[in-house]
Amino acid sequence: MPDKIDLLLVGGTVVTMNSHYDVFVDGAVAVHEDKLVAIGTMDDISQNYTAVATLDCTGQVIIPGLVNAHTHIPMTLFRGLHDDLRLDVWLGYLMPLEREFVTPDFVKLGARLACAEMIRSGVTTFADMYYFEEAIAEETAAIGMRALLGQTILIFPAPDAPTYEDGLIRCRRFIEKWHDHPLIQPAVAPHAWYTATPELLRACTEMALAFDVPIHTHVSETGLEAQNCRNDNNMLVVPWIDKHGLLNTKLLAAHCVHLERQEMVQLKKAGAGVAHCPSSNLKLASGIAQVGEMLSLGLNVGVGTDGPASNNDLDMFEETRLAALLAKTASSDPTVLPARQALEVATIGGARALHMADKTGSLEVGKQADITIIGMDGVHNQPHFNHHADTVYSRLIYASRAADVVHVLCNGRFLLRDRELLTVNEKQAISDAAKVAADIDAFVNRRESSPYNKLVFLAGVERQPSFEIQLKVPIADKTAILTTLESDQIEKVRYAHYRQYDHYFLFSGDDPDAARLRYREDEFINEKGDVTQVRSRLTLIGGGEREELDNAVMLSRSRFLAAADRSLRFYREYFDPASELKIDKDRHRWHILYKGTDFAINLDSIRKPDVAGHFLEIKARTWSRQDAARKASLIAELLSHFGVEIGTADQREYTEIVTAELG
Amino acid sequence: MPDKIDLLLVGGTVVTMNSHYDVFVDGAVAVHEDKLVAIGTMDDISQNYTAVATLDCTGQVIIPGLVNAHTHIPMTLFRGLHDDLRLDVWLGYLMPLEREFVTPDFVKLGARLACAEMIRSGVTTFADMYYFEEAIAEETAAIGMRALLGQTILIFPAPDAPTYEDGLIRCRRFIEKWHDHPLIQPAVAPHAWYTATPELLRACTEMALAFDVPIHTHVSETGLEAQNCRNDNNMLVVPWIDKHGLLNTKLLAAHCVHLERQEMVQLKKAGAGVAHCPSSNLKLASGIAQVGEMLSLGLNVGVGTDGPASNNDLDMFEETRLAALLAKTASSDPTVLPARQALEVATIGGARALHMADKTGSLEVGKQADITIIGMDGVHNQPHFNHHADTVYSRLIYASRAADVVHVLCNGRFLLRDRELLTVNEKQAISDAAKVAADIDAFVNRRESSPYNKLVFLAGVERQPSFEIQLKVPIADKTAILTTLESDQIEKVRYAHYRQYDHYFLFSGDDPDAARLRYREDEFINEKGDVTQVRSRLTLIGGGEREELDNAVMLSRSRFLAAADRSLRFYREYFDPASELKIDKDRHRWHILYKGTDFAINLDSIRKPDVAGHFLEIKARTWSRQDAARKASLIAELLSHFGVEIGTADQREYTEIVTAELG
Repeated sequence: MPDKIDLLLVGGTVVTMNSHYDVFVDGAVAVHEDKLVAIGTMDDISQNYTAVATLDCTGQVIIPGLVNAHTHIPMTLFRGLHDDLRLDVWLGYLMPLEREFVTPDFVKLGARLACAEMIRSGVTTFADMYYFEEAIAEETAAIGMRALLGQTILIFPAPDAPTYEDGLIRCRRFIEKWHDHPLIQPAVAPHAWYTATPELLRACTEMALAFDVPIHTHVSETGLEAQNCRNDNNMLVVPWIDKHGLLNTKLLAAHCVHLERQEMVQLKKAGAGVAHCPSSNLKLASGIAQVGEMLSLGLNVGVGTDGPASNNDLDMFEETRLAALLAKTASSDPTVLPARQALEVATIGGARALHMADKTGSLEVGKQADITIIGMDGVHNQPHFNHHADTVYSRLIYASRAADVVHVLCNGRFLLRDRELLTVNEKQAISDAAKVAADIDAFVNRRESSPYNKLVFLAGVERQPSFEIQLKVPIADKTAILTTLESDQIEKVRYAHYRQYDHYFLFSGDDPDAARLRYREDEFINEKGDVTQVRSRLTLIGGGEREELDNAVMLSRSRFLAAADRSLRFYREYFDPASELKIDKDRHRWHILYKGTDFAINLDSIRKPDVAGHFLEIKARTWSRQDAARKASLIAELLSHFGVEIGTADQREYTEIVTAELG
Repeated sequence: MPDKIDLLLVGGTVVTMNSHYDVFVDGAVAVHEDKLVAIGTMDDISQNYTAVATLDCTGQVIIPGLVNAHTHIPMTLFRGLHDDLRLDVWLGYLMPLEREFVTPDFVKLGARLACAEMIRSGVTTFADMYYFEEAIAEETAAIGMRALLGQTILIFPAPDAPTYEDGLIRCRRFIEKWHDHPLIQPAVAPHAWYTATPELLRACTEMALAFDVPIHTHVSETGLEAQNCRNDNNMLVVPWIDKHGLLNTKLLAAHCVHLERQEMVQLKKAGAGVAHCPSSNLKLASGIAQVGEMLSLGLNVGVGTDGPASNNDLDMFEETRLAALLAKTASSDPTVLPARQALEVATIGGARALHMADKTGSLEVGKQADITIIGMDGVHNQPHFNHHADTVYSRLIYASRAADVVHVLCNGRFLLRDRELLTVNEKQAISDAAKVAADIDAFVNRRESSPYNKLVFLAGVERQPSFEIQLKVPIADKTAILTTLESDQIEKVRYAHYRQYDHYFLFSGDDPDAARLRYREDEFINEKGDVTQVRSRLTLIGGGEREELDNAVMLSRSRFLAAADRSLRFYREYFDPASELKIDKDRHRWHILYKGTDFAINLDSIRKPDVAGHFLEIKARTWSRQDAARKASLIAELLSHFGVEIGTADQREYTEIVTAELG
């Protein structure tokens, strides 16, 4: 008498991904409750089982549910917001957004969108790392997907934890609550070694070992990261995280783009999993992981999409195909990562990398019923060759698409049936996401509305005294000026000599009075002519607010200073100016006291572009307009000490002088 | 009064890809007959035009039809047949298949499948290169797509031309017939410089100039090709084809993976187009073209899928996304080939590369109405940000999929409407393709049925005289043998000394008598011990046909010889043996006459694996069994001259001796 079971999938080609790579061309799969109870030929299975429900899969292919080995699912809500940017600029845009928007509701909505997309593309299991991971767990469990969910811990203030100690506490609570759930595998997710202290890493190791849960972390994503680890720690990345115990845990190492062979061997010995994320690594120009080499060493490699802000989708078909294609060129060998092995990486390989291969990743009796059924009728996947059962792997890897997925079961439950999502209200989620996107648009519009706002969103600013009073006079011969300055007539407070490299970012080519941003590098020069110190500052110069006070003494307003702790390249890409102007100056500066008032005297020469002669500048600052008028008269007096005619003063700023010079 | 036109597309975002990159968020496109008559905002267009038919595109995106800049469309019928192989092995499988199957009907059916797939993925224009291009033209024109179709010309016998002169004649007729067609742009397609003689290239140049048609050819696809050009011609590839006039024509150069900068500059100056095929280049491990550099030089770059036997699909969404991703890592710069430029490459860039930008590639008044309309409602493409009109490029490039294409028009005619193909009977094409695939399966099964068949399909074989008669005796000390050979007792015809490196491919591990294939490299050694010549041969040794004739003299049959003009690696991958055995021997060989009959005397020692002592072999060949018996007795007589006991003879072949030795 055949057993009575819940569900029979019959017909179609069953691709088991078991250790023999069994393929049953006219196959069948028997599911009872949440488990796989039989896999084989349709003839065999039909004889032994009758089922409450039978699904005809003729012409389709039945595979284990795909495993997305690394992602940040709530970032669906940032998809396509900022692309084609360097990592630092992207983070410059993104981190203020995350501070503003990321809440439990936000991550739940993002997770909902992501689960809908992943189910539609045949994924049943994924590994996540983000903030408020307990909210992501609730959403994922409700939708019915299997997941390794890592609560992020890092040294910087996070949307869900002001300090990493708070992050650790949150993570512990999360694990305690979820660690017996049939679908959710909680994990500790130190973001990366370079956003962690050794203490943080050790605390994560201890927690992972205490609860016997995995650690999910980023490893050697960029060449810079690998280089920094060598410089900072005098060690490669894998030995460094090993030093803090991570290799003693069930480790899931994402990216692994810049590993030495010895690091791969070390990961292999530790039984660690690697999540290979080819799209993201290409998109951020991080490089190409040596997956062929890792696989030849027997490492457990899975494929991950990474977050949809750096991919920009969660399509495991495309990701797996890319992994297969890329590995060939990376190894200069088209036989590397062939189709069958590519499907392995996307299923059982990923399950092993997540330390969840006892539950999922292959169609084997006793495992959970995580199953994806793929249509093969699309014209993009014709014709079918059948001289060997293995031709199905080529069809699956090199021509199948996410849109070909027809049914998906996870843990014995249908999540997608006849292309219809059963556990997500997709329409509602899309409409909710549109509302969030409108709020983000408003935030971005605010940020983009002026260079000032961009500066504030990036770093905050320090406002300088409101008024700058300045007089500039071209000087053909500086001897007389220097003689005066060296005399006792002038009470000098301090002196400095430096070269100034100014980059002006101009935001509106047509308007001479538009705001502009100056990135200034000062190289301090000692008596020997050596550079002793370098300083960078960012100054936002408000447009349209200059006036002549008295005798060509100019008043300007609204200057904002910010520490320029990033590169010129960063600011250029972040502020994206309409044009740029570069001025290199040699500056001698004296801070003086004149009638008890501070003034700065600059004796400048413009080195690049080549402008003849020198400029004498006398400057002061104040918060008050009245005081500005007083200082303006003092400046006029001061000038007479230098024997310079006030009539020769030049009211223009250096940008104007140079622009006129350049014609 | 507004004009009355044929069709208005209203609503949706119109992405023009004109020189200002105009995007109309609530846009409209007016089509009359085969032309675009207006593009702008919905408000503007609606005021000025009324239409016979109006299509509401609200929520969708209207772009120029995509341009697939390089493919071989009939190869849909080989899709997924042989993957993950090195190029030479793949060609080893493919070329006999093409000789057998490629006919006008075959290319038409393949073209039909390909057009269906391309239309579904938003392509309106493609550049092809294959055989029987006139049949492809008929099919393409009937379906209503725009195409640059290149008739292949090469020095090897082709399915449609036994010689390249025949190919040139066929190409000329093809151009004469099609060169005024509104959709078809015929072209001359010399396959590549390395499958051409200088005369062939010059003849192609002349024909292209005479008819003012483009040349479509492969350029620098692999590093080996570039290296060979330097070695053979003492020139880089682009200067070499320039020398034969190709750069004076409207050139479309496919692949361009291994170009020096100076070659890019030369192509730019010539106004040549480049078809970048990232999937194919990755899949065949050819490398990554420096597209970022080409674009910065202003080259006309398009994106191509290449043929579906090396991709394995014709999905321009995936191809364009890959181009964008790959360019970033290839340049170590994530800002390279941003989304807008990627769409440019896939549309107007491709049209320029095909020298067809006057007709297609952008939505501009006066151009042909080639339009693709893409749905944006999929969950994989949510949410949408709208703080800038340009956010649409990210959605199109990084998240849209072929399956999102809703409508396609080419030359003003709907080819796809509401995802339904209007000009291809897709079901019939799929069913016809299944029949061809079954025939190909049968062919492959025949080929794979025995090593003999694989050898015949690859290269043809030369049958040696049917019978080999041989006696083998182990010899502890060779001095006595040499003394006899040097004496006048034996009439020596010639003598040679060589090292033999034998690789035996074994096809059935369990069966000692199964056929095996021997790849033998002979190094001829002169008196000084130098290698003077190297020769490689492939011998198929039939299994199970040995018998003892007389006194341990062995008779074997069915030996087939083939020239081994390819590498051991090639044969290993082509024949895919179950196991391998490697034997290195030192052989002294004397051809002698004994009683007027030819014999070969070998004095062998096995160097690797290390087998002690020497072996004396006496051999002869014949076509007749009776003659074999006669020679067997002569061999027994001969042996007595060497003073060796017949009882010490070893009936085993070297493979058996070595296998026993290895345990």
